Amino acid sequence: MIRFESDYAEGAHTRILKRLLETNEEQTPGYGMDEYCERARGYIREACDMENADVHFLVGGTQANTTIISSILRPHQGAVSAITGHIAGHESGAIEATGHKVLTLPSDDGKINARQVKELYDAHWNDATHEHMVQPGLVYISHPSENGTTYSKSELEELSKVCRECGLPLFMDGARLGYGLAAKDNDLSLKDIARLCDVFYIGGTKLGALFGEAVVITNGDLKRDFRYMIKQKGGLLAKGRLLGIQFETLFEGGLYDEISKHAVDLAMMIREAFVEKGFSLRYDSKTNQQFPILPNDVLSELGKNYSFSYWEKVDDTQSVVRFCTSWATKKEHVEQLIEDIRNLDL
Amino acid sequence: MIRFESDYAEGAHTRILKRLLETNEEQTPGYGMDEYCERARGYIREACDMENADVHFLVGGTQANTTIISSILRPHQGAVSAITGHIAGHESGAIEATGHKVLTLPSDDGKINARQVKELYDAHWNDATHEHMVQPGLVYISHPSENGTTYSKSELEELSKVCRECGLPLFMDGARLGYGLAAKDNDLSLKDIARLCDVFYIGGTKLGALFGEAVVITNGDLKRDFRYMIKQKGGLLAKGRLLGIQFETLFEGGLYDEISKHAVDLAMMIREAFVEKGFSLRYDSKTNQQFPILPNDVLSELGKNYSFSYWEKVDDTQSVVRFCTSWATKKEHVEQLIEDIRNLDL
Amino acid sequence: MIRFESDYAEGAHTRILKRLLETNEEQTPGYGMDEYCERARGYIREACDMENADVHFLVGGTQANTTIISSILRPHQGAVSAITGHIAGHESGAIEATGHKVLTLPSDDGKINARQVKELYDAHWNDATHEHMVQPGLVYISHPSENGTTYSKSELEELSKVCRECGLPLFMDGARLGYGLAAKDNDLSLKDIARLCDVFYIGGTKLGALFGEAVVITNGDLKRDFRYMIKQKGGLLAKGRLLGIQFETLFEGGLYDEISKHAVDLAMMIREAFVEKGFSLRYDSKTNQQFPILPNDVLSELGKNYSFSYWEKVDDTQSVVRFCTSWATKKEHVEQLIEDIRNLDL
Amino acid sequence: MIRFESDYAEGAHTRILKRLLETNEEQTPGYGMDEYCERARGYIREACDMENADVHFLVGGTQANTTIISSILRPHQGAVSAITGHIAGHESGAIEATGHKVLTLPSDDGKINARQVKELYDAHWNDATHEHMVQPGLVYISHPSENGTTYSKSELEELSKVCRECGLPLFMDGARLGYGLAAKDNDLSLKDIARLCDVFYIGGTKLGALFGEAVVITNGDLKRDFRYMIKQKGGLLAKGRLLGIQFETLFEGGLYDEISKHAVDLAMMIREAFVEKGFSLRYDSKTNQQFPILPNDVLSELGKNYSFSYWEKVDDTQSVVRFCTSWATKKEHVEQLIEDIRNLDL
Repeated sequence: MIRFESDYAEGAHTRILKRLLETNEEQTPGYGMDEYCERARGYIREACDMENADVHFLVGGTQANTTIISSILRPHQGAVSAITGHIAGHESGAIEATGHKVLTLPSDDGKINARQVKELYDAHWNDATHEHMVQPGLVYISHPSENGTTYSKSELEELSKVCRECGLPLFMDGARLGYGLAAKDNDLSLKDIARLCDVFYIGGTKLGALFGEAVVITNGDLKRDFRYMIKQKGGLLAKGRLLGIQFETLFEGGLYDEISKHAVDLAMMIREAFVEKGFSLRYDSKTNQQFPILPNDVLSELGKNYSFSYWEKVDDTQSVVRFCTSWATKKEHVEQLIEDIRNLDL
Repeated sequence: MIRFESDYAEGAHTRILKRLLETNEEQTPGYGMDEYCERARGYIREACDMENADVHFLVGGTQANTTIISSILRPHQGAVSAITGHIAGHESGAIEATGHKVLTLPSDDGKINARQVKELYDAHWNDATHEHMVQPGLVYISHPSENGTTYSKSELEELSKVCRECGLPLFMDGARLGYGLAAKDNDLSLKDIARLCDVFYIGGTKLGALFGEAVVITNGDLKRDFRYMIKQKGGLLAKGRLLGIQFETLFEGGLYDEISKHAVDLAMMIREAFVEKGFSLRYDSKTNQQFPILPNDVLSELGKNYSFSYWEKVDDTQSVVRFCTSWATKKEHVEQLIEDIRNLDL
Repeated sequence: MIRFESDYAEGAHTRILKRLLETNEEQTPGYGMDEYCERARGYIREACDMENADVHFLVGGTQANTTIISSILRPHQGAVSAITGHIAGHESGAIEATGHKVLTLPSDDGKINARQVKELYDAHWNDATHEHMVQPGLVYISHPSENGTTYSKSELEELSKVCRECGLPLFMDGARLGYGLAAKDNDLSLKDIARLCDVFYIGGTKLGALFGEAVVITNGDLKRDFRYMIKQKGGLLAKGRLLGIQFETLFEGGLYDEISKHAVDLAMMIREAFVEKGFSLRYDSKTNQQFPILPNDVLSELGKNYSFSYWEKVDDTQSVVRFCTSWATKKEHVEQLIEDIRNLDL
Repeated sequence: MIRFESDYAEGAHTRILKRLLETNEEQTPGYGMDEYCERARGYIREACDMENADVHFLVGGTQANTTIISSILRPHQGAVSAITGHIAGHESGAIEATGHKVLTLPSDDGKINARQVKELYDAHWNDATHEHMVQPGLVYISHPSENGTTYSKSELEELSKVCRECGLPLFMDGARLGYGLAAKDNDLSLKDIARLCDVFYIGGTKLGALFGEAVVITNGDLKRDFRYMIKQKGGLLAKGRLLGIQFETLFEGGLYDEISKHAVDLAMMIREAFVEKGFSLRYDSKTNQQFPILPNDVLSELGKNYSFSYWEKVDDTQSVVRFCTSWATKKEHVEQLIEDIRNLDL
């Protein structure tokens, strides 16, 4: 069984494991106050071209989302998100558990736009009973989205502009950020993201690390006391240097970009194979997740040798499924899959 | 200006004020442990035909909703509600502030049905990643709904049956319960409600009291330690007897039913006037709230002498508005409104 | 049985009931937007000599404490309070339910002082692991305290000075504020309190109102969006004018001061009677609560005709109890009690 | 600089790193559903002699404490803990952030006893106003405690008995559990702990793992839906197998016991060196943490070559400090320290 069901099926990139081994016996202070973390912060600030950004390392995505959102909002405020957003549906109520509603916007492809945010904002403030409703307090997006789609630079600029006009911090969940930056048609850089968002994170778990997300806070108003929040939400790893070592390795010599490109290239090969065979794609993803619409008997056939995720039912005969590649995906596995797609007897 | 904008524009029924005056100098224990509360509890248990029901008096609706829901749910569970439900949109995030998501079901008329609940329940438990999603933990309905509509006995029986099959306590918000019981086509009694729901409340604020909601817990599993919860959520009135005196008065000699009927009769007169004049109604409400769809110039004309609530835009020329009657509405005011509706120059 | 067990045993002052009756049929907007609330706000701003103070009316004390504290603190911050403070022990965990720890300071008499606050503040910030601990975020005091004691003007000035130096908003719980202002040796005015505190409330429930607390926010930074918070915490009374009418009546023509003085005068008579009989007082209270230390057989004897609260055990033969007077206490009841104290056969 | 300041200064035991390397390229399902986790669960159940125990792997201690406590308590309940307990002082308010008060008991040595729990329980339920106070809902202990002390079998049996009589689940924080089990005078086994506690965890972070805590739920009533809670609190690691691999390695062939013993043996050597030199110990710790009371000039002298933690001031000339050993401590470092202690010029 070859797994395309997720982008967290393997351990970590070899270089990371090697560094963990090399540094294993060193004694360092805990909780992210070591020199590895400090160096990793430097690399990330440099990549973002923002010397005064605050960089924190957290263990996982739920933690990052919860810590960031609850750190920013006052009790009567909510987080604006696409209805498809991870925080809206797949965090077991983690955001609500910190006291905040997720205010959802409709989305077909996982993205939201500046106009939607402005309309929701205006609708709130123009409602005579707005004090009886949850006030929008920040905007959450993910890039790539849950559906593999990405924001263009102009889209993000518009969204950022509206958010700043409305006083809504813009938070980008970058659990798969590398795969977005490596997308074929991407025109966004880390520098753009740092400039346009108020806070975002650079995913490690799905991009070569054993685990870990690097939170970057660019808006000075959001920096204060963030380490208390990390500790309170359970994200302050005792052996913080594990995170520092991993992100240092990822951002040294371009490893993060390189492995992201690897995954996206393989994903595009899979995409093309499905398209060539005549299948449609549910979302126009140029990143590491591909969502073909497949007849149920094709699912059964491919399911014999490959694992992938069931996404949603289309009708009685067809379904959307998800194939993921990652930094760890082997080219020969993709080639074998493509061969099997080509040979499908339709 | 004659106000039809809400059902809480006046003080309290004369009999209630009279009793507050008569008892004013008496000294009683606090926090609902007085004999007035005890007698009121007895009346309500009798009206519900349920001797072992627990009855608690709270100050208002937000409190009642918050206290009940947070008392029942475990941290990973949410409250299922119509998207139009009060807790979904008009409590400033009070439910989320206690840590719980409101899981919404679509609704055009403010009601939800047994099939919807079952489907949501099945969808949750059949999803392979259900542990990553908020688990449905109770079902919230209001009767009448936010839109003035009511549940028939058979509808409530079906809903109750599904809820019990799924292990989901059924909670009825009865902020306007009297108006539902007094609806023309109503076939539900308080006894039915007590039998079919696990917890509900009988609204006082909108039905003759200065303030107050009587929470009735019929499911023994939900009774434990409820007074702690009331205290914690700020609902345990020091001078609890004020609530006891009010509910005693409302449930002595049928006052609650009588004043509910008064409001509904007047609302039906308004309804008929609009219909006769050729206007449509947005919801088929047989209760004290009426939702005519009116041209904007009619709104301006009626707005000169009457206040009512803006509900929603239909198109550039028409809007839905809400006219409320209440226990306090004067018949001559309704007659004057009807006359003005008849004389509208369309 | 004559009740001295609490200061909320009766209904409301006659003038308040009279005004509720007179205004009962008037129609007003809800949620505190009526003219009675507006006038009451004006009276209170005038009494505080602070035109730009924000004044909000809430139903009760738990609500006021919860709403104010959760509105001010960020998630990692706590409220500093005397270990004896109401929020530390008698709110069923209401503060914690909003996510915040109560950071307690030792206190023998219910009060805390500037030095204690400064030491706690310094201890936090000087601790190398302070990010692992709850950060002090505001200071809560009550005046009079739970033990009937009061702050002098110089004590409050010192406390206020330290709080401002430390960036800690100072919040005064004034559930019994009138009785503090009426204390024999009091040198604090409402104007001083408004000047020295960042937010406080003027208790109504225990001082002539059926219920209600007037929250006064003097620090501009704490004003924003407070009405959302009131709604979310269940304190936004639909018939808000009930609160406006009550506070208007209390602050018109000095009623609040007058009834506070009445209660304190009677309490001092009780105090003297106990002292003359040779009993000690647990706290040096000059307000409406008196805490004599009495032999257990005296408790039995007095308990035949009077109710009072058990406070704490001293030893096997003696206990501290609490006698409360209030705006409603009848002088003849106090005289009868004093007579019975004098006639005790020791 | 040789570090004795914490027990999380190094990476992981070599055998663990080796296994992570060997398994790195394997593809497994996420979120703890892999075969490594399953095998590790089996080993732990076996070590606990409890086949039906639920075993979950979480990333860290704050998470474990927060997830377990918030999973058990209802909103009005609190966790009983020694005032010195980790959850009382060093989690940045993580417990309160889930809505619950920590109810503290005095403790000089980090432990609490059965009598204290019973008295607190009785005091609560005998108080006439108990509904206004936080109800004790579970008992939290740590073993070893924050002060290195441990419970004897008879102490734990008494505590467990009282907890069961009072209906209070007993939760043991075992962040350093191995070091407790390896203590010289220890008569408790994992089997005893599993039998006497309702839930506990076996620390990995401080005992040879890169990170990770194994939560063992033995009380059937506490098992339901625990994985939802882990996810919500951010503890459900995507690459869950990392935890499985680590705990499998630790519990295969007795590694956990072996490395625990190593640390404790070295700690006892340090202890003896201090005692022989004439210094007192603040706590009678037989585990990996030692708390000598040292003159300030000795601190300066030792501080030149060794790092240790400042614990508390004794007087102007003496302080308590903490020396930690761990699975990773080198014997030669300890010998060098002992030599330097012996050579101190007092």
